[in-house]
Amino acid sequence: MAATPVWSVDPRTGKQRERVAVEATPHEVDGAVRAAHTARAALADATTRAAFLRGAAGLLDGAADLVVAAADAETALGPGRLTGELARTTGQLRAFADAVDEGSYLDVRIDRADPSLTPPRPELRRYKVPLGVVAVYAASNFPLAFSVPGGDTASALAAGCPVVVKAHPDHPATSELCASLLRRAAVAAGLPAEVVGLVHGFDAGLELIRHPLVSAAGFTGSIRGGRALFDAAAARPVPIPFHGELGSLNPVVVTGAAAAERAEEIGTGLAGAVTLGAGQFCVKPGLVLVPDGPDGDRLADALAKSLAETGPGVLLDHRMRENFLAGVRERAALPGVTAPVAPGPGGDHAVAAGFLSVGARDLLEGGAHEPLLEECFGPVTVVVRYSGQREAADVLGRLGGNLSATLQLSRAEGEGAPGPAGELIRQVTELAGRIVVNGWPTGVAVAPAQHHGGPYPAATSHSTSVGGTAIERWLRPVAYQSVPDALLPAELREANPLGLPRRVTGG
Amino acid sequence: MAATPVWSVDPRTGKQRERVAVEATPHEVDGAVRAAHTARAALADATTRAAFLRGAAGLLDGAADLVVAAADAETALGPGRLTGELARTTGQLRAFADAVDEGSYLDVRIDRADPSLTPPRPELRRYKVPLGVVAVYAASNFPLAFSVPGGDTASALAAGCPVVVKAHPDHPATSELCASLLRRAAVAAGLPAEVVGLVHGFDAGLELIRHPLVSAAGFTGSIRGGRALFDAAAARPVPIPFHGELGSLNPVVVTGAAAAERAEEIGTGLAGAVTLGAGQFCVKPGLVLVPDGPDGDRLADALAKSLAETGPGVLLDHRMRENFLAGVRERAALPGVTAPVAPGPGGDHAVAAGFLSVGARDLLEGGAHEPLLEECFGPVTVVVRYSGQREAADVLGRLGGNLSATLQLSRAEGEGAPGPAGELIRQVTELAGRIVVNGWPTGVAVAPAQHHGGPYPAATSHSTSVGGTAIERWLRPVAYQSVPDALLPAELREANPLGLPRRVTGG
Repeated sequence: MAATPVWSVDPRTGKQRERVAVEATPHEVDGAVRAAHTARAALADATTRAAFLRGAAGLLDGAADLVVAAADAETALGPGRLTGELARTTGQLRAFADAVDEGSYLDVRIDRADPSLTPPRPELRRYKVPLGVVAVYAASNFPLAFSVPGGDTASALAAGCPVVVKAHPDHPATSELCASLLRRAAVAAGLPAEVVGLVHGFDAGLELIRHPLVSAAGFTGSIRGGRALFDAAAARPVPIPFHGELGSLNPVVVTGAAAAERAEEIGTGLAGAVTLGAGQFCVKPGLVLVPDGPDGDRLADALAKSLAETGPGVLLDHRMRENFLAGVRERAALPGVTAPVAPGPGGDHAVAAGFLSVGARDLLEGGAHEPLLEECFGPVTVVVRYSGQREAADVLGRLGGNLSATLQLSRAEGEGAPGPAGELIRQVTELAGRIVVNGWPTGVAVAPAQHHGGPYPAATSHSTSVGGTAIERWLRPVAYQSVPDALLPAELREANPLGLPRRVTGG
Repeated sequence: MAATPVWSVDPRTGKQRERVAVEATPHEVDGAVRAAHTARAALADATTRAAFLRGAAGLLDGAADLVVAAADAETALGPGRLTGELARTTGQLRAFADAVDEGSYLDVRIDRADPSLTPPRPELRRYKVPLGVVAVYAASNFPLAFSVPGGDTASALAAGCPVVVKAHPDHPATSELCASLLRRAAVAAGLPAEVVGLVHGFDAGLELIRHPLVSAAGFTGSIRGGRALFDAAAARPVPIPFHGELGSLNPVVVTGAAAAERAEEIGTGLAGAVTLGAGQFCVKPGLVLVPDGPDGDRLADALAKSLAETGPGVLLDHRMRENFLAGVRERAALPGVTAPVAPGPGGDHAVAAGFLSVGARDLLEGGAHEPLLEECFGPVTVVVRYSGQREAADVLGRLGGNLSATLQLSRAEGEGAPGPAGELIRQVTELAGRIVVNGWPTGVAVAPAQHHGGPYPAATSHSTSVGGTAIERWLRPVAYQSVPDALLPAELREANPLGLPRRVTGG
């Protein structure tokens, strides 16, 4: 059987740029996983891991021009955005190196023996060990920060887990370039290059999730693709954790008081959040509750003006463009839905941003309006005009899980006693992993307290794929009972030779 | 359709004692879940939850005579063991109340805004919120500590999640009694009784796992039953976490030096661990690597002597007794397997303890010896005689995941440099959630650093069902970005009115 070539495609023209690789055969996937598995012992030393992550960040920064050019040629995201994404990516690698140095991710807990208890308590010392080989499924829309050198890879390596990345077909050349830099950094840190593997091809992705030596997976992508892999992970003879980020509507609620206070500012800000990266953000606001009446009208007008002024955008690939156009057509045809600024084609390879509008009552009682409650990837949002908090609450009550929920509140609502705004906070907390007030959900800060996840389908687990605690996904606890000090891992020895933070109980 | 009665059965005679309840219909399961879901808001206050847990412990202790008598009549575990189990259970309820008071389970993290960063970092405040209604599947072998008032229930309530327990058919009357005490404690603490629900019946258990308002499940039981529920949890339109403890062989390795030092002590101790609770412990040592030669022979002799002196034991139910007898027969018939003390029937309703013995080479090369690597519930263990560390390592390499692994080492092996004992520690860390040296795995201490879980099939997730971190299973993180102080949950406010431990970054 001939190898299936993997082409790098220019989304601005739809033309094949170069033949980058071939799709991995089952044998090749097996080889990559086995090589990674064999290399895992080399990752046991924390100092080496931290040096590796910092070295990788340095090599990526040093090759910034090359990396940004490669990614732009394949994704059309533009050098500005991609330069920022690279900085975010290398910052993330360094942040995980810092987390490794600091050590609290090991969650060391020590209970001293207590013979006075009934029954007597033995000595227990617990920390966390890496799971083993992690499969990383790269995202289309972040060729760096959620792909080969992205958060899943960085956090897994930080945890001590080798990774095999399944490249996204939208940026195979960028993937190869980044993988080669990571592998070079590994070797420079004294590690085998095989701690980072890369495979191409849909079937290779399925092989990977089913491989007995793969111990966990991270995924960023669509509900359909993510659910298929989640199901495969759960159906294995030995099921493994599947940390997937699948889809999110990211509702926004604009209160009447907020619209009265700053309708134009909110409308313009919303347009920016909807069109950033051509609307290809997992945290793009996809449903916006705007009050009925003149203040809401002013907001919609400002949104319309900004969107109409936005130039056409190129989506990541042709299929995505078709899905966007079909999704918009389907939604615009629903009863009661208007398109004040019609989203649609913008030349042969681009799309024009826009928004749809519908009354809350139509949405709630229409019966066929479910598509409005589903993510539509690309530069479009749905404005739902509501009358009274009860109606807004009813719409929120129809939503599934989300990565984010945003409230636009007036100054007084933010400063005063909770009241209705407090009730909104409570309601969206049930819906989402991150609550934003008077800002926009786009731009997920890489920070220790970040949470990028949420109830299904936002995420398939309760973990985060961004921020300090993302490392927790790739570790499992082990307790050592009455183990002599000389035989304990260094992390748990009484003298604490690694200087780790730890919680000690008793004695 | 007539209701299916639920009978309490005396395992010492096989006779029905009393009709306790009826199996829950789908409508009744729905009612219990909805009532629990409605009651969840009442659990939001941490002080109330802690008082509830302590009140429940008090009521259970106050009714100790009743509870122990009820459990003994249905399980034949004996008043001594059950009195200890009740103390463990109420101690566990109080320990989770203490954890609620202490507050670090909320894992509060605060990142102050940093406008000097590129891009500027917004303020982020993260903590954890309860998932919602938790389904708890009670274990056969611990009618208290892993059943209605057990660790899953205690940790879920501590997290703020109402529970609906699926009673185990081996102790329906004990389950009803304990549920009534928990519900009385709830009401005394000012909570709705519906924060604790109870249903009976196999089908009710399936209804429960599929119910849209159930948000997570805890399970202790067999691989077959647990895997079926795990699969159902994963197949839901909205999958939920399933924390199951399914099965474990709990390997023990006795080194040559340890056998030389104290063969008789180890053999006798092993007999005690194998017959405790008639061998019905999930951490019963089920496979013991004993060195070839005279020291190993002395160990086997001491084991044989102790087991032969152990009186017959009554298993939890008739089906379990049949499975034990069939399991022992199947294993004893394998080539090369001997039965130095034959386990088997011990009167009409009891069983006699014993052990099987096999050479490591027979086990490794026999081809049909897989059953020896699977848990056999009841008072039996398999002694594998090995020659040299390499052979022991080969046997360990054939095992799946385990709750525990135990090493019996000589004094010198514990005190000296790691060497071969260190290599054993490293190998069993890959296999198990808890490593015990020179003790026995039975008796899982309720303690902050405990870990009772392990690679599949020991557990279906990387969490623990015993110890302080068991509460983590029922919570998910939420981050609040730029939310005004007045609108934040009290747990996250700047002034820290609840006095919670927190990690603050920046500013």
